[in-house]
Amino acid sequence: METVIASIGISPPYYAVIFTSLLKDDDTGLYDQSAAKMVELAQAQPGFLGVDSARDCHGLGITVSYWKDIESINLWRDHTDHQVAKKMGRERFYAAFSIKIAKVEKAKSWKS
Amino acid sequence: METVIASIGISPPYYAVIFTSLLKDDDTGLYDQSAAKMVELAQAQPGFLGVDSARDCHGLGITVSYWKDIESINLWRDHTDHQVAKKMGRERFYAAFSIKIAKVEKAKSWKS
Repeated sequence: METVIASIGISPPYYAVIFTSLLKDDDTGLYDQSAAKMVELAQAQPGFLGVDSARDCHGLGITVSYWKDIESINLWRDHTDHQVAKKMGRERFYAAFSIKIAKVEKAKSWKS
Repeated sequence: METVIASIGISPPYYAVIFTSLLKDDDTGLYDQSAAKMVELAQAQPGFLGVDSARDCHGLGITVSYWKDIESINLWRDHTDHQVAKKMGRERFYAAFSIKIAKVEKAKSWKS
């Protein structure tokens, strides 16, 4: 699959959830499976606009998902499967994480 | 050096610059050097709060830098060395990128 940057489709304002995480160890098979499942589920949520995700070789990952409004983010936060995954994340996968909710005010893209 | 998630030090509101990029090829030596220099310079700028960065094995990278206010972001945008690096980025390094300016409204951190 070609690697691309998420195309959001609408102009600001919209919202970003910046999720930065540090994995506990290198046993990422189950983690990758759970993370892929969550992206799939999020994409089907109302108000979902797009997602970009990168994890480096030191286990630091940044996932930024984009949402139409705060209500969409809250619905996704409370989704049962997402809550189960978050519990598993805290118990098994993550050494640390941070979540930031931010209102995107300006956006621009460039392509060579 | 231990990999950690940036500690911001102040409570929201503050600003995030979400820079998502796709590298053109794997010749990343010069890129890494330029990127490291920019992080070093950014850290010395007024209003800089922190930065997290991750690049995956497909060349997709996300760098989120955090700033006290829009004025700090504009000063950094107009910094001469940064402008030179951005020109080089467009001409040599990037196949595509997106920049989003967002106001962080909520933030939480978790550590195991």
